[in-house]
Amino acid sequence: MHFADELIGRVRELGHPLCVGLDPHLDRIPSAFRKGSMRPVDPATSEAVQAFCAEVIDRLEKRVAVVKPQIALFEQLGWRGLQVLEVLVDRCRARNLLVVLDAKRGDIGSTAEGYARAYLDPDAGLGVDAITVNPYLGRDALTPFIERCSSHGRGLFVLVKTSNPGSGDLQDRSLETATVFEAVAEMLADDCRRLVGPNTGWSSLGVVVGANYAEQADRVRQRLPEALFLVPGFGAQGAGAEQAVRAFRAGSGGREGGIVNSSRAILYPACESWETGFEAALDQAIDRLGEAVR
Amino acid sequence: MHFADELIGRVRELGHPLCVGLDPHLDRIPSAFRKGSMRPVDPATSEAVQAFCAEVIDRLEKRVAVVKPQIALFEQLGWRGLQVLEVLVDRCRARNLLVVLDAKRGDIGSTAEGYARAYLDPDAGLGVDAITVNPYLGRDALTPFIERCSSHGRGLFVLVKTSNPGSGDLQDRSLETATVFEAVAEMLADDCRRLVGPNTGWSSLGVVVGANYAEQADRVRQRLPEALFLVPGFGAQGAGAEQAVRAFRAGSGGREGGIVNSSRAILYPACESWETGFEAALDQAIDRLGEAVR
Repeated sequence: MHFADELIGRVRELGHPLCVGLDPHLDRIPSAFRKGSMRPVDPATSEAVQAFCAEVIDRLEKRVAVVKPQIALFEQLGWRGLQVLEVLVDRCRARNLLVVLDAKRGDIGSTAEGYARAYLDPDAGLGVDAITVNPYLGRDALTPFIERCSSHGRGLFVLVKTSNPGSGDLQDRSLETATVFEAVAEMLADDCRRLVGPNTGWSSLGVVVGANYAEQADRVRQRLPEALFLVPGFGAQGAGAEQAVRAFRAGSGGREGGIVNSSRAILYPACESWETGFEAALDQAIDRLGEAVR
Repeated sequence: MHFADELIGRVRELGHPLCVGLDPHLDRIPSAFRKGSMRPVDPATSEAVQAFCAEVIDRLEKRVAVVKPQIALFEQLGWRGLQVLEVLVDRCRARNLLVVLDAKRGDIGSTAEGYARAYLDPDAGLGVDAITVNPYLGRDALTPFIERCSSHGRGLFVLVKTSNPGSGDLQDRSLETATVFEAVAEMLADDCRRLVGPNTGWSSLGVVVGANYAEQADRVRQRLPEALFLVPGFGAQGAGAEQAVRAFRAGSGGREGGIVNSSRAILYPACESWETGFEAALDQAIDRLGEAVR
């Protein structure tokens, strides 16, 4: 498998690049699933999260190409949270959904190797198709992840320009000839080119670029013509569809070049109408947002 | 509790700032503990790691103030790894050892909140005294962690200048008036001052600065006079004791201003002489390194 080829192949089939973020905020879990105190480390809370997410995942089959679980919201449940996430990732595979783990890991040498082994190796308990990573520690800290793109066909999304208000504190600061986020993009250019897929021309080394920073997206695209963009910030975080797909370009299946994530704008409507039929609310949200970014 | 006051108080009592990194590399676990295949997700592997680390922790009581588990090496064991880490953190508490979790987390808004809840809240399954975090996403991404320094007396070590060879790729790049790592230090200055402890004058908002980058350490210290330094890279990564404590300054208990971490230089000698008495090897390594950075 080549991650980018596989992902873009599925996006072409479905006709939209929508990615559903699996962010189980405890205060949003529908009452049908809630048990006991809902304190994070209560075992009943993990059960509730698992049951809720399992129903959502089942409904996503054939509707989206890819799901992005936010590992922080599972870690807050303690070790049981990772156990739940492992079950849910298996369920995604059984439903033919690709999984991008939003973990934003970053560490050095043998420690980075530990993270890569934990999430990208074939025999990992929680093995996923791609992972998000943080570039602050430099190129050598990304090596174990990049190696697994070559050797195991995995994918990577490196944080370049994040969607939060404070992302400018560091990422927008000017260096001698560019900004910090542009320097990160330049640091990735060689590997990005090397990891291009034979079928689609897209690379398994992708980047995270917030939907709400259009001009920055252009500058990243200039430097990384083959990188898939993982675009957060669409919908609930305020950016519109045109902004979200700004760095996409004409491809064989229409405009393409990444995936657009939505978590709250899909999950919350479904949560709020759980009793009266979450399926319709989930489908509607996917149809509406998928159409918008098509 | 105020983290910095507590930590420095213990360092003064012991007379050295040595922190022991708990990095259970599977290929180094002594044969006395090894079971079965030692594949990462095999339950027997987690048992071996737990038994090994428990013996090390027991031996650290009254010898060091603080232990730094590297969570990546537990995550590679799957959810059982976090279960083991939870048991080991409890054991550290019972042995009166402070715990700095080396997790290098960093995310935005409600996700950062999830990480802070997972590791710094009083009712967290894996609650520790302090955590390492990544500044690439900007000041707002650090807020949930900083809040818990104020409200729960926790501590924080923000990556500023890491010890790996590639740390210069981004961190040493020049901005308009400073480098990236100096900009990070400046971003932390107000919070650092605000979180100073009443007893020692040191702040619970600390920084990670590699022992092998002495000049950079000076520049960080200029900008953050009250920050505790968590110093990796001493011993196995090549830096000497004088470099490691370079940013420390005269305090009531001798030179102080942080903790110097050593993982491999303490654990490996103990691993290699396990059969013939690891206790002596561990004690010797601690005595030798502790003396060096005293």
